[in-house]
Amino acid sequence: MTDKIKVGIVGGTGYTGVELLRLLALHPSVEIVAITSRSEAGMPVAQMFPNLRGYLDLAFSQPDSAVLAQCDLVFFATPNGTAMKLVPELLEKGTRIVDLAADFRLRDEQEWQHWYGESHACPELLDQAVYGLPEVNRAQLKTANLVANPGCYPTAVQLGFLPLLEAGLVDSEHLIADTKSGVSGAGRGANVGTLLSETSESMKAYGVAGHRHWPEIRQGLSLASESKIGLTFVPHLTPMIRGIHATLYAPLKSGKKDLQNLYESRYKNEPFVDVMPAGSHPETRSVKGANHCRLAVHVPASGNTVVVLSVIDNLVKGAAGQAVQNMNIMFGFEEDAGLKIIGLVP
Amino acid sequence: MTDKIKVGIVGGTGYTGVELLRLLALHPSVEIVAITSRSEAGMPVAQMFPNLRGYLDLAFSQPDSAVLAQCDLVFFATPNGTAMKLVPELLEKGTRIVDLAADFRLRDEQEWQHWYGESHACPELLDQAVYGLPEVNRAQLKTANLVANPGCYPTAVQLGFLPLLEAGLVDSEHLIADTKSGVSGAGRGANVGTLLSETSESMKAYGVAGHRHWPEIRQGLSLASESKIGLTFVPHLTPMIRGIHATLYAPLKSGKKDLQNLYESRYKNEPFVDVMPAGSHPETRSVKGANHCRLAVHVPASGNTVVVLSVIDNLVKGAAGQAVQNMNIMFGFEEDAGLKIIGLVP
Amino acid sequence: MTDKIKVGIVGGTGYTGVELLRLLALHPSVEIVAITSRSEAGMPVAQMFPNLRGYLDLAFSQPDSAVLAQCDLVFFATPNGTAMKLVPELLEKGTRIVDLAADFRLRDEQEWQHWYGESHACPELLDQAVYGLPEVNRAQLKTANLVANPGCYPTAVQLGFLPLLEAGLVDSEHLIADTKSGVSGAGRGANVGTLLSETSESMKAYGVAGHRHWPEIRQGLSLASESKIGLTFVPHLTPMIRGIHATLYAPLKSGKKDLQNLYESRYKNEPFVDVMPAGSHPETRSVKGANHCRLAVHVPASGNTVVVLSVIDNLVKGAAGQAVQNMNIMFGFEEDAGLKIIGLVP
Amino acid sequence: MTDKIKVGIVGGTGYTGVELLRLLALHPSVEIVAITSRSEAGMPVAQMFPNLRGYLDLAFSQPDSAVLAQCDLVFFATPNGTAMKLVPELLEKGTRIVDLAADFRLRDEQEWQHWYGESHACPELLDQAVYGLPEVNRAQLKTANLVANPGCYPTAVQLGFLPLLEAGLVDSEHLIADTKSGVSGAGRGANVGTLLSETSESMKAYGVAGHRHWPEIRQGLSLASESKIGLTFVPHLTPMIRGIHATLYAPLKSGKKDLQNLYESRYKNEPFVDVMPAGSHPETRSVKGANHCRLAVHVPASGNTVVVLSVIDNLVKGAAGQAVQNMNIMFGFEEDAGLKIIGLVP
Repeated sequence: MTDKIKVGIVGGTGYTGVELLRLLALHPSVEIVAITSRSEAGMPVAQMFPNLRGYLDLAFSQPDSAVLAQCDLVFFATPNGTAMKLVPELLEKGTRIVDLAADFRLRDEQEWQHWYGESHACPELLDQAVYGLPEVNRAQLKTANLVANPGCYPTAVQLGFLPLLEAGLVDSEHLIADTKSGVSGAGRGANVGTLLSETSESMKAYGVAGHRHWPEIRQGLSLASESKIGLTFVPHLTPMIRGIHATLYAPLKSGKKDLQNLYESRYKNEPFVDVMPAGSHPETRSVKGANHCRLAVHVPASGNTVVVLSVIDNLVKGAAGQAVQNMNIMFGFEEDAGLKIIGLVP
Repeated sequence: MTDKIKVGIVGGTGYTGVELLRLLALHPSVEIVAITSRSEAGMPVAQMFPNLRGYLDLAFSQPDSAVLAQCDLVFFATPNGTAMKLVPELLEKGTRIVDLAADFRLRDEQEWQHWYGESHACPELLDQAVYGLPEVNRAQLKTANLVANPGCYPTAVQLGFLPLLEAGLVDSEHLIADTKSGVSGAGRGANVGTLLSETSESMKAYGVAGHRHWPEIRQGLSLASESKIGLTFVPHLTPMIRGIHATLYAPLKSGKKDLQNLYESRYKNEPFVDVMPAGSHPETRSVKGANHCRLAVHVPASGNTVVVLSVIDNLVKGAAGQAVQNMNIMFGFEEDAGLKIIGLVP
Repeated sequence: MTDKIKVGIVGGTGYTGVELLRLLALHPSVEIVAITSRSEAGMPVAQMFPNLRGYLDLAFSQPDSAVLAQCDLVFFATPNGTAMKLVPELLEKGTRIVDLAADFRLRDEQEWQHWYGESHACPELLDQAVYGLPEVNRAQLKTANLVANPGCYPTAVQLGFLPLLEAGLVDSEHLIADTKSGVSGAGRGANVGTLLSETSESMKAYGVAGHRHWPEIRQGLSLASESKIGLTFVPHLTPMIRGIHATLYAPLKSGKKDLQNLYESRYKNEPFVDVMPAGSHPETRSVKGANHCRLAVHVPASGNTVVVLSVIDNLVKGAAGQAVQNMNIMFGFEEDAGLKIIGLVP
Repeated sequence: MTDKIKVGIVGGTGYTGVELLRLLALHPSVEIVAITSRSEAGMPVAQMFPNLRGYLDLAFSQPDSAVLAQCDLVFFATPNGTAMKLVPELLEKGTRIVDLAADFRLRDEQEWQHWYGESHACPELLDQAVYGLPEVNRAQLKTANLVANPGCYPTAVQLGFLPLLEAGLVDSEHLIADTKSGVSGAGRGANVGTLLSETSESMKAYGVAGHRHWPEIRQGLSLASESKIGLTFVPHLTPMIRGIHATLYAPLKSGKKDLQNLYESRYKNEPFVDVMPAGSHPETRSVKGANHCRLAVHVPASGNTVVVLSVIDNLVKGAAGQAVQNMNIMFGFEEDAGLKIIGLVP
């Protein structure tokens, strides 16, 4: 195939990095030409991640902007604050970018600085960046040069709330998102708090006072709604590796609507959003390793509150899979190229 | 010790049964005289549960009301609908009862019938039964002959909401309880739905349309509040054995209060309710195997919603431990007798 | 593609069944025409297994030999003792068979009867059946009409021991196979023993006195060796869903050999057996969802014992994946068609 | 109680430390006077380990030999190589010591240096130290001033092999110990390798080439046997928090013996070793949180190999519980004081 694009990955040793490799190694239109890691330069990737043995014959390399600039597309799977330092140069040289970190997710420079604790290195690009939620911004993504791949919680929460807000059916000032994430969402860093012995057989909330995904979600919901957004967001650490379950609550403005039909209509052309039949309870495992978001919408007996259940795999639709979906849109591939993956059950 | 009471357990093969045995086998004031199981009569208890080897030298026996009537106290660790058929006879003979199932939890006969799908066998006892939440009904428990041990979710949710409702600080018509339970809460029955291969590495909600603990919680909260209760209750199956994490949301009536102080005052004399310092995120593992409920109260940035985090071990404070606590109160033992157990961490 | 083969699956509700569906639904040369289940006939498959939503639009049907006989290939994912009753008729009508159960794994009728507790329904076919371990019987599989797909433990253990026995380097009378399996190996039946609450956070051996995979392994090893086989086989239930880790011990006949080279040579043309570099410790997760067997061979300090580490996914290389690999060989497809799957890490 | 002993703990922030605290906080004859941690000095212990809230009102302190020297007993729950630097001074001042690390486990200075990679700081004490396996050295422990608490694997393996070796029934040159440990055995350090996302849903061997517990086990078995010991030891990391399952293999010298009786006789007076009935398969969960070792002995069909199954909780009988048992023996307390704990099932 002469028409494969050249792809580079900056920061390949974390969970989003290895997940990108799992997806891209089998993608029909992609050639991976560089995977960088300062700390592991020289080590064959498949030595660190033996699941890739036989599928990827490449070693980690030092980040080198000359090499990266020869790529058609560079994914950043780096900690927050890294991409923004390299992106301007690469864009200038014509390389397109998908940043899986948070550097370009917020449009407001001040808000970014507040939540991420440093000045933004290229605030002038914040407006240019397209927020990579295909279900909202597919048209812009086709021509985007800089894509801000959404956070994991924001993906699950926005896809769950959007139909209600777009239709103006709920009191948008009293939204609640109670979200549960597998531990891989905390990354592959060496931290006591994510050891198996600390997190298995236990459940806890965290970041109740404030979490960086809160402004990102609020920004997305505000764009979808004509009203002010009031959102209480409580994430929980759940004893599993992968998966996000978002349980969303919103006060119904008046009486019952045909919400099932609303959701099915909103997402009927979406390849990766699956509205389940009325009465369903989606399980995170149904999307384990897959790029789907499964949704169910309920109005329990009391009748004044909508409950939306939204599940994704935090590393796929919540990170690397969505990044590949964005790439597919940007380069005119089939949107599900490399993403025809069935959730691993059991 | 001549003053040990004689205790019987009806239905000893489930998880609440074996947990009762774990606690009672080491209780200084209890002699276990009978453990019944129709299906396993004759089998030594420690053969089914080898953790009890060396601590309990008793076999399962057929339920025999003559034997049970010689007990000072009989615990029912049976499926719903069993206790109500035996309790009247035992009460008449002077045996006191703690029912760990739901037969006597609802005061309203019609509501019981609606949720449990059969007629109640002794509705005249519903008024007499004391709801066994010591933090609410300690005085009545001292003299109670029939105690309805609360459900697991209702314990975690009520202890979390009570201070707010008693003080009238929240809009009681828009309460939300998002609850997460370990799989042992579903019991020891042979069901596909609770196999490890079905529930591990996954998260899901269930019973969104209606759950039997909903009327029980609503009843308790109504008694504590002067206002009407509107409650949305969504339970989730969590990939762990033990533990309940209840995340509770309530709209604050007006502005911020000193909720930390409110909670500390409400529970300052409670041996098993621990209000954690402001800003805490209790973990379920901190109460694994222990009878404590740990609480934290937050008001996130937006300022209009209280978030309460409440954790218990569903088999201890949510079942067998609370039953022993009730027994201790009923018989005048130290309230923490047999319950001085530190959560198993890690 | 006009050259897709028609495939049927008998017994589609267990874990090997759903795993076959996951693999076959995306296989480029297969059309699934029937999935039978007596108990679930009429139910859409994707209703029971929502991970298949969007990938498989088929309902369970009653087993109907007329329908099955129109298939080019029928997989049996049934309990032991089922396939043998239907296979003769299907073979006669020209349908080829891969049985994922044990009906045709043992060549000796008496031994089969001893271990499976009933008479064999078609002992005359035992000789005709080809044992579906491609690494041993690839040539015969190409023309086989009846394939006995190996058990999960036998796959991991035989692939680990074969090079040593074929080369005659070890004392074959003192082989030890200490094997650890995820809980999915016990199937999707409703059993107390495989509940999450019974198997999570625990490890145990089982079947030490005798296990049905023992004669199967011994048969395979005997065919590979010129000496008598003495095998101690101890399986263990491990708190995870998928994966088998076989730790194999054999006394070396004399001194150290270049075992690394032996293993690499033996498997160098095998698409699904990966001999890791010297000193490696393969993890089961490196093959989670994938059809690979990863091996490492060690001779610890003492020098008189070889230790082989062999990992597979019990549902893939240990069941459905190997069945698809066998199908690929039988029908002349690329051997890895539908099996280019990278292990899901993390 | 005027006769409580004063106890200090050096290194209280790891898993053996917090487990010691769980056990000692409720011990009737112990007063904990100091818990040291260089890194956390000043922090209340119950802030780091909220399960201890209400049971322990003490803060971590800087290690101070003057304070420690006032203790009757000091436990070292430190990394290897720490205790040996402080022990001589404390012993001189009359403080007795239980070291839970490996500093005093090996009698041979050269071997210690080989395996632990540094010179021993007080080799003259190696002979004086008593190896704290009560089932072997109870008499010496009563008067010991310096106790080397055994490693977790060595406890499970030695208790399993001892009766066979003492009776001379097996070929001691071909012993195999295939051991499986929960992840807490690797400690509470911040390591990628023990993250939940790395270790859950996976099984692997490690240290096949050599593990520090190998010389410790060999030393203990050599003392019990009149023959030379040849031991192959393969540890495995198992996806659970607590528990060790040792599966032990030994060639029987000649024919079947009444091994069940041998084991029952050997351990009949041992409070913490439970020989299960013939045919049993002990589960690690049966000792979760408890100080018991449960054993079962099998001779599978082939008849030439004994299989012993031995389970402990690595943090209790494999560390802190055995340390408390040793303390009880040293100070003449009831041997099970503070250790009457039933395994947490489920």
